[in-house]
Amino acid sequence: MDDLGNALFDLTAPLFEMQLMGTVLFQLFIIFFLARLFAEIFIKFGMLGQVGEIVAGILIANLFIGDFTIAAGLDIAWDPDHPSVYHEIFEVIANLGVIFLLFAVGMETRICDLRAVGKTAAWVAILGVIFPFILGFGLVFAYEVYFVPHDDWFIHALFMAAAMVATCIGITARVLTEMGVMDTIESRIIVGAAVVDDIMAMIVLAVVVGISGAAMAGGGLDLASIGLTILIALIFVASILLLCAGMPKIKERQICRMTEKGIRCQERDWPLKLEPFPLAMLTCLGLSAVALSLGLAAIIGAFLAGMLFAEFAHDRLESKFKGINAFLVPFFFVYVGMRVEMAGFVDIIPFAIATIVLAIVGKYAAGYLGVTMTDKSLGKKSGDIVGIGMSPRGEVGIIVAAIGLTAGAISRDMYTVVVFMSIITALIAPPWLAKSFKKKYLDDVTEGQ
Amino acid sequence: MDDLGNALFDLTAPLFEMQLMGTVLFQLFIIFFLARLFAEIFIKFGMLGQVGEIVAGILIANLFIGDFTIAAGLDIAWDPDHPSVYHEIFEVIANLGVIFLLFAVGMETRICDLRAVGKTAAWVAILGVIFPFILGFGLVFAYEVYFVPHDDWFIHALFMAAAMVATCIGITARVLTEMGVMDTIESRIIVGAAVVDDIMAMIVLAVVVGISGAAMAGGGLDLASIGLTILIALIFVASILLLCAGMPKIKERQICRMTEKGIRCQERDWPLKLEPFPLAMLTCLGLSAVALSLGLAAIIGAFLAGMLFAEFAHDRLESKFKGINAFLVPFFFVYVGMRVEMAGFVDIIPFAIATIVLAIVGKYAAGYLGVTMTDKSLGKKSGDIVGIGMSPRGEVGIIVAAIGLTAGAISRDMYTVVVFMSIITALIAPPWLAKSFKKKYLDDVTEGQ
Repeated sequence: MDDLGNALFDLTAPLFEMQLMGTVLFQLFIIFFLARLFAEIFIKFGMLGQVGEIVAGILIANLFIGDFTIAAGLDIAWDPDHPSVYHEIFEVIANLGVIFLLFAVGMETRICDLRAVGKTAAWVAILGVIFPFILGFGLVFAYEVYFVPHDDWFIHALFMAAAMVATCIGITARVLTEMGVMDTIESRIIVGAAVVDDIMAMIVLAVVVGISGAAMAGGGLDLASIGLTILIALIFVASILLLCAGMPKIKERQICRMTEKGIRCQERDWPLKLEPFPLAMLTCLGLSAVALSLGLAAIIGAFLAGMLFAEFAHDRLESKFKGINAFLVPFFFVYVGMRVEMAGFVDIIPFAIATIVLAIVGKYAAGYLGVTMTDKSLGKKSGDIVGIGMSPRGEVGIIVAAIGLTAGAISRDMYTVVVFMSIITALIAPPWLAKSFKKKYLDDVTEGQ
Repeated sequence: MDDLGNALFDLTAPLFEMQLMGTVLFQLFIIFFLARLFAEIFIKFGMLGQVGEIVAGILIANLFIGDFTIAAGLDIAWDPDHPSVYHEIFEVIANLGVIFLLFAVGMETRICDLRAVGKTAAWVAILGVIFPFILGFGLVFAYEVYFVPHDDWFIHALFMAAAMVATCIGITARVLTEMGVMDTIESRIIVGAAVVDDIMAMIVLAVVVGISGAAMAGGGLDLASIGLTILIALIFVASILLLCAGMPKIKERQICRMTEKGIRCQERDWPLKLEPFPLAMLTCLGLSAVALSLGLAAIIGAFLAGMLFAEFAHDRLESKFKGINAFLVPFFFVYVGMRVEMAGFVDIIPFAIATIVLAIVGKYAAGYLGVTMTDKSLGKKSGDIVGIGMSPRGEVGIIVAAIGLTAGAISRDMYTVVVFMSIITALIAPPWLAKSFKKKYLDDVTEGQ
């Protein structure tokens, strides 16, 4: 397949350009088609479309048709020794997808929501970061120190721990909305905790990327450089969070002005006179690039950029980014699946099962304890609901693992395990959550009769 | 700069990937920033934002800061001898932009509008294709046969002629809307003619690309292969146009079903049960790839794909494609500007002026004659309005020239001339159109008093 890439460079420029675009269009067509096909199949069986897209990616890279996988046939396979220009183009498209996806996630994370988060939700979120982190770290520590010794166990453990932190609120929110129970106290705790959880996951990621980057650059754990990197990471995140916290004031001033003038709508009152979209796009691209140049992950910049626009331009930006993401994000999920290696999967099944169990236990315990210990009015059944509701992991955990894989901070096996952990928790949680809700509210109804 | 590209290939894979994405994000940020900056400046002075984006591209590639242009500094310069991976990535993004742009143009071109087009509008459109084509062909014939002899004058002349065909209705429509004269007979003729014009421009492009492709592949003008290519082109275009013509019937059946069932909305009634967006994306990517593989231009496939969805999913697709295009299309216009070569521009000023004059004369004569000869009730003033309204060229002419440049069918000088022709006609037409409208309707008012 690499011959094709080399041959292309030998062609005259005009033909090369024509052929490049024709090949890219064909590749994008095939990938988008398979992504959508599996998304539709999964949706048909009541599962998440994104999981179908990841499965499409797994098949593209792991299913042999004759002597080739589809990825090799399309010349988009990931081969570190022979980078193909088509793999790089695909990678850029997939990475732009995840950057705009995280911008959209950030846009749903409002600082003002954070103020409204109660003590219970805050505890659920904080414990929900600490427990899975400790369990994930402990698992890799046990595995790579006692069972399969590895020199880099510390970096591996950090990334696995970070990948287990972030709850995927999208899955839970969909179940809650479908059941019509969004107004219950448990739902409000889950949604509130998810906001804190998102921000804390980004901070954990920033710190972990900083530590591992410093450790790998220095060839070991140099405390001074690690301290510096963490400091830079925290200053970057904190300064943008402070900027976010200042945003509502700008908004309030705008509303006042609007009331005074009567006719002028809030949006026109924006002092910069620019439309929000170009500014949002520049902020997203710019902060992502800055985050990368600081040794952090691009998505941290994108997420924070999204938060900057969450409170005063969300409605005007939403439809534009929905369009961009409808095109780009499927390529990211396929890309996630394509990096999964099924060849040696049997050997790591015990490790995968342990990871999945600990991932669920960590979040469940955090939710259960967070609820039952801080709010005496809520019982075990409420703890049960919140614990289950916090347990699905989604794109953020996978992204953390993908960053670790790209940086060489975790192995491909561990990456595969994280992808499966995210898929399995996302598939298990919805029916279990529905059951626990019925248990509480149907029983209450029965008791009430 | 090429050293950078080579150096990147030498790095280990993880670092390479990190650096690739960081560099791409930085490049996209700078390009998007400059594009938006110049768009805002141009809009401020009452001109088109897109022209500002093209100017940003011209500066990026032609303005030396120290020893380097910005394009060379960013490593995205177009150098056929040393393809840079960053130039290719930028090219893919720009080309995806123009493909989705033409999908959006196609989505505004409805076959049912075509049926409503009157005899006058049809004549304006047909003459408006024939006159500029003959004038453009004649100009290059005269120039390259008598003044600056060139062996490939026939191919050059074909592409220049094709680039002079397509009216940019967007500019005229904006002026008409701003003046509040969209309901006048002249406006309706212009809008009707533009629909026919778009479709005919695509057919002309298909034929020209077919002829030049066959001629260049055979090393000369082999009539049999040219005939075959034209046949393939026409069959491709005609079969999709026929499919478009059949679409309204599907729609009618859907409306009937909807009335029967009462509650089910038209959109759910779509027999495929898929959302329209993934299908539209696949059709757009697929037909673009098919068009390229048939030796046609990708945008022909994209335009026809847009027409397929124009009548039954326009409203549901519009916001998604607006989002995608808001992100991607500025990169296309910058890419257009970057290919303009200012170095030898002084030498081609006479040729450029002749092109601009003939471009305006051709469309003006077509509009004027089309109106005054077919509708006796409309006078010279109406002919004047329609002639001016049809004269601005826009993205389609530039795209045709860009395809010719990429295929080696026109020189970079000619490409530069077409870009300037499009810019100048787009800048001249709006104030002139406003004047001619006032001349007719203000005079009428005065006469009526």
